[in-house]
Amino acid sequence: MVKLGLIGCGRIGKLHARNLVHRVEGAQLIIVSDSNPQAAKKLASELGIEYTLDYRELLKRELDGVLVCTSTDTHKQIVIDACEAGKNVFCEKPLARTLEEVDEMVRAVRRAGVKLQVGFNRRFDPNFSQAKKEISSGVIGKPLLLKITSRDPDFPSLEYLKVSGGIWVDMTIHDFDMARYLMGEEVEEVYSTGSVLLEPRLKEFGDLDTVVTVLRFRGGAIGVIDNCRRAVYGYDQRVEILGEKGMMEVPNPLPLQNIRWDIEGAHSSKLYYFFPDRYERSFVEEMRAFIKCLREDTEPPVTGEDGRLALLLALRAQQSFKEGRPVKVG
Amino acid sequence: MVKLGLIGCGRIGKLHARNLVHRVEGAQLIIVSDSNPQAAKKLASELGIEYTLDYRELLKRELDGVLVCTSTDTHKQIVIDACEAGKNVFCEKPLARTLEEVDEMVRAVRRAGVKLQVGFNRRFDPNFSQAKKEISSGVIGKPLLLKITSRDPDFPSLEYLKVSGGIWVDMTIHDFDMARYLMGEEVEEVYSTGSVLLEPRLKEFGDLDTVVTVLRFRGGAIGVIDNCRRAVYGYDQRVEILGEKGMMEVPNPLPLQNIRWDIEGAHSSKLYYFFPDRYERSFVEEMRAFIKCLREDTEPPVTGEDGRLALLLALRAQQSFKEGRPVKVG
Amino acid sequence: MVKLGLIGCGRIGKLHARNLVHRVEGAQLIIVSDSNPQAAKKLASELGIEYTLDYRELLKRELDGVLVCTSTDTHKQIVIDACEAGKNVFCEKPLARTLEEVDEMVRAVRRAGVKLQVGFNRRFDPNFSQAKKEISSGVIGKPLLLKITSRDPDFPSLEYLKVSGGIWVDMTIHDFDMARYLMGEEVEEVYSTGSVLLEPRLKEFGDLDTVVTVLRFRGGAIGVIDNCRRAVYGYDQRVEILGEKGMMEVPNPLPLQNIRWDIEGAHSSKLYYFFPDRYERSFVEEMRAFIKCLREDTEPPVTGEDGRLALLLALRAQQSFKEGRPVKVG
Amino acid sequence: MVKLGLIGCGRIGKLHARNLVHRVEGAQLIIVSDSNPQAAKKLASELGIEYTLDYRELLKRELDGVLVCTSTDTHKQIVIDACEAGKNVFCEKPLARTLEEVDEMVRAVRRAGVKLQVGFNRRFDPNFSQAKKEISSGVIGKPLLLKITSRDPDFPSLEYLKVSGGIWVDMTIHDFDMARYLMGEEVEEVYSTGSVLLEPRLKEFGDLDTVVTVLRFRGGAIGVIDNCRRAVYGYDQRVEILGEKGMMEVPNPLPLQNIRWDIEGAHSSKLYYFFPDRYERSFVEEMRAFIKCLREDTEPPVTGEDGRLALLLALRAQQSFKEGRPVKVG
Repeated sequence: MVKLGLIGCGRIGKLHARNLVHRVEGAQLIIVSDSNPQAAKKLASELGIEYTLDYRELLKRELDGVLVCTSTDTHKQIVIDACEAGKNVFCEKPLARTLEEVDEMVRAVRRAGVKLQVGFNRRFDPNFSQAKKEISSGVIGKPLLLKITSRDPDFPSLEYLKVSGGIWVDMTIHDFDMARYLMGEEVEEVYSTGSVLLEPRLKEFGDLDTVVTVLRFRGGAIGVIDNCRRAVYGYDQRVEILGEKGMMEVPNPLPLQNIRWDIEGAHSSKLYYFFPDRYERSFVEEMRAFIKCLREDTEPPVTGEDGRLALLLALRAQQSFKEGRPVKVG
Repeated sequence: MVKLGLIGCGRIGKLHARNLVHRVEGAQLIIVSDSNPQAAKKLASELGIEYTLDYRELLKRELDGVLVCTSTDTHKQIVIDACEAGKNVFCEKPLARTLEEVDEMVRAVRRAGVKLQVGFNRRFDPNFSQAKKEISSGVIGKPLLLKITSRDPDFPSLEYLKVSGGIWVDMTIHDFDMARYLMGEEVEEVYSTGSVLLEPRLKEFGDLDTVVTVLRFRGGAIGVIDNCRRAVYGYDQRVEILGEKGMMEVPNPLPLQNIRWDIEGAHSSKLYYFFPDRYERSFVEEMRAFIKCLREDTEPPVTGEDGRLALLLALRAQQSFKEGRPVKVG
Repeated sequence: MVKLGLIGCGRIGKLHARNLVHRVEGAQLIIVSDSNPQAAKKLASELGIEYTLDYRELLKRELDGVLVCTSTDTHKQIVIDACEAGKNVFCEKPLARTLEEVDEMVRAVRRAGVKLQVGFNRRFDPNFSQAKKEISSGVIGKPLLLKITSRDPDFPSLEYLKVSGGIWVDMTIHDFDMARYLMGEEVEEVYSTGSVLLEPRLKEFGDLDTVVTVLRFRGGAIGVIDNCRRAVYGYDQRVEILGEKGMMEVPNPLPLQNIRWDIEGAHSSKLYYFFPDRYERSFVEEMRAFIKCLREDTEPPVTGEDGRLALLLALRAQQSFKEGRPVKVG
Repeated sequence: MVKLGLIGCGRIGKLHARNLVHRVEGAQLIIVSDSNPQAAKKLASELGIEYTLDYRELLKRELDGVLVCTSTDTHKQIVIDACEAGKNVFCEKPLARTLEEVDEMVRAVRRAGVKLQVGFNRRFDPNFSQAKKEISSGVIGKPLLLKITSRDPDFPSLEYLKVSGGIWVDMTIHDFDMARYLMGEEVEEVYSTGSVLLEPRLKEFGDLDTVVTVLRFRGGAIGVIDNCRRAVYGYDQRVEILGEKGMMEVPNPLPLQNIRWDIEGAHSSKLYYFFPDRYERSFVEEMRAFIKCLREDTEPPVTGEDGRLALLLALRAQQSFKEGRPVKVG
């Protein structure tokens, strides 16, 4: 049994904690921590486990790994502390908002000889991981074109947006990771353009709501990501990859399959509203993968380097937009 | 070039005539006839060909074949006359409303040594003919279950219905032919039940609007046909066949593929409204097949025997409903 | 918190037990029992709860309800004992194999004034329950035709089949319940026919592998159920209902949505292989509904009468096949 | 009756000629011309009409309009001659390969006071014209994002490619027109990148086989076009538009709807192989629209200005690729 502690009892922390207790085998969640006493206590009591207000107390416990689910600005310090306490780490995405911070974190991981898995959960979605498997097997041949559609159902709060680091760091970062994951290849150039079409207040702090990003991979393949903060029809998360020998489409799964026919035509289900439902399975599988790499002492499936490279692409895309030209990733 | 004459310039006659002139190669429509002078003249003038009011005049012409597109009650005499004039015959479905008449027609055909093709156009629909081809190739293995959905968008006129011979002879007859065609096997027992749920006036002359018919094939496979005179969402024409090694679905083609997503979900196109649109291609292919069997002197793809057996099933289904029990086809 | 005990630690018992512990709120599984010590001990240990080998010991405990998940032939005695112990009961389907036994069970339930919920889990499938909701709301108008496709991926063992009561009691019974549930109306006549096409050894004990059953509802609507013991492409569970104002289709959900295009066309996912995956959500919702009716003291959503009527239809269908004619349900 | 002549009896000329004779009402094709005597004679004989080897002879005839279906390099002279002969003109796309030539043609059209319709047939595809209609009606609200997928099944000959003007002028030009048509708005900036991934010989003359083009519309909406010269699974022609109130998808129509299920999953039809099949209906509707604007003396639905602007976008995209930066359209 792998013994775990969890730091940060907010939305995503609770989600991981419940999955660890109810849906993941081979792991035992021992303790949770949160500087907010109510949050820590409530989650601990729901799951029948211990809690502490100070994550440093948690790090003193005998644990195989910790999950860092706090707000992004606290990631660096907690991850470094966890490394120094000799704990393997699962850290939510993004690792940090600057490359410098990420580099510091990755150095701490190496120094301590622990493992770091980054929370790009979408890789563990059954559709995406099956697509990856088939693409790697060569069934569609050499990839030529990648298209990622990634649209939220609605805006988060303006307060959140102001400190989010901008749409590329907050939202597209998942798609940058997905692009690298599916293509199995690095990006050499990024071009991004976009607009404020839905929420004029974004202009006050230089953010966008509708963005298209073009990726040039080293081998010449081209990728396109389109993002929008509001798709009224739901959380739209699709991928397609054209290869030399075929094409792989990953459409949206639907919560209901029913089709109603009337005099106007056919009517079918809405999309899942947002990520806790849409990516439910991926969060379970992500934890299973983390447990597995601890138990079998293997490389995590999403490393600190993966976290770093996704952030690098996000920052280059932002730069591209600001400078109005494609930017080399370097 | 195959030389043809067409008898009966109503809806289906015009459809065949136009296809012969504009869309079918290797044939020449020489003359049309209709006892209604206006109908005959108008069609002839549209197509730039001759016409006559008396089909017997038409039968005196040098023609390789004639198309009989008049009302069902006139089929027998015209087909017999055509045979005696040595003409190959394409006759619309149903051949007649009684087995006795059909037998007389088939005898005339044999006596004259001409060909008779019956107008079961659905066999020539690209989806159905492809399904037949694949089923025959063994790709789904031995057929176990056949399901045919066959629903009209709305009732024809009550006047039409009163002389139509009832839903089995008028509507299900197409499905009986489809069942025999796809299964490549004869039916040994029929059970049919149904109701008047939509149009109470049908009760005055003993007809139904909603019917389910079960077929037992000789080898033990089971078929089900469901019919309804009014499907508000359009002309619903589907088939599926379960075999030992797989299943073949023939869904409805749609006139438009667009999907509109909004806050309620996805909305897509209506079905085709009725047979001239839904089965447009089948009518063209049906004519091509008739021309081909005349040119190559081969057996027509839908014979008088096929017409007879579909009618026999229709009459047995009617009997089954009246007697409230399954009936052997004999 | 509702306190529960579970009797029978086989496949379906384990499934319910795990759902109660991990996925259902408001209930506490206190104890399990099984006459097989290994089965009882293993499940209890996995879940960290008590166990007993004798269900009568379990019935002595202070519990709000018990789940009867043993083999069908033991249902009657256990349910009656549970009633006499004053426990509310959830009993797996079928309640029993004869109407006499079911009547005895229902009488015991009434006498004790407890609740009985029967395990027709499919009613709780999200697609089916949404369809029911919409049909009841009148959105497709008065139902005219119901079609249920219900095919297993493969045969159970011959040993199982020999004591299963035959395909109607073992397999179609779910579909009879679904038909009554979706139509909200009782059946007045049943006709069933079928064959042995796949497994000749069924003939030794008079069972079938391929069956079509026609239902006549009291208001004249017609239903068709098609069953097959082996659909090589997976567990095929579909429904459609034609109404006066529209049609509701419930297609199969798929485990994966990916579509691969190559020179041959498009290739997409298999169906779910069988019920634990296909109906995963329904089992969770079924337990939630049971807990809810205990907590709120309401009528169970699937009553003993529902269990009785589904069995009655199964027995009448069997009789219809044997007598070669439609049979009134009475 | 509108009287027409057709210049150029190659693939696209034959297609229009046959449609005019067999499928379009209200028009009469009087004469065809081609400098290749065989081509002209064969088509004229097939359709039972006159022919000439010199298009200037044709222009002397009393005609309401002419169709220019010759190779692109001859368009300018023929269109100018036709204008001077007072004929209305339908000219195939692209009008020419340089803006200077197009401007000269448009001036000749204005001077003569005749009509010019350009052959962007895709606008007349039933799916696309329905999408346009709905988008214009406001049903999806203000457009935010446009995505066009446009992939050929395979390369044309290298000989053709060498004189084609490059992928943007030859292939993407249709998509530029589609973008302007669906969005009802002009493009202000273009960025394009691409690669040679499939056919290395393209490098000899600076062409590409895989290209992504990003459009910035004046109101801030963003468009993406992806092109590839070879999609082994067929002619892939899709569009989607995200709007403030919904999303419109235009998927590929399929030639067959059948789905075959086996132990591997579901298998469905290939795409149409190429444009004569995929866009069959659009060519008929395009002719109908041309006839209609001649008969009703209205503005053609696709004008010389449309032809000019699509070419302008193609040239700007080419420039963007060469200069490695987004380019203002001006």
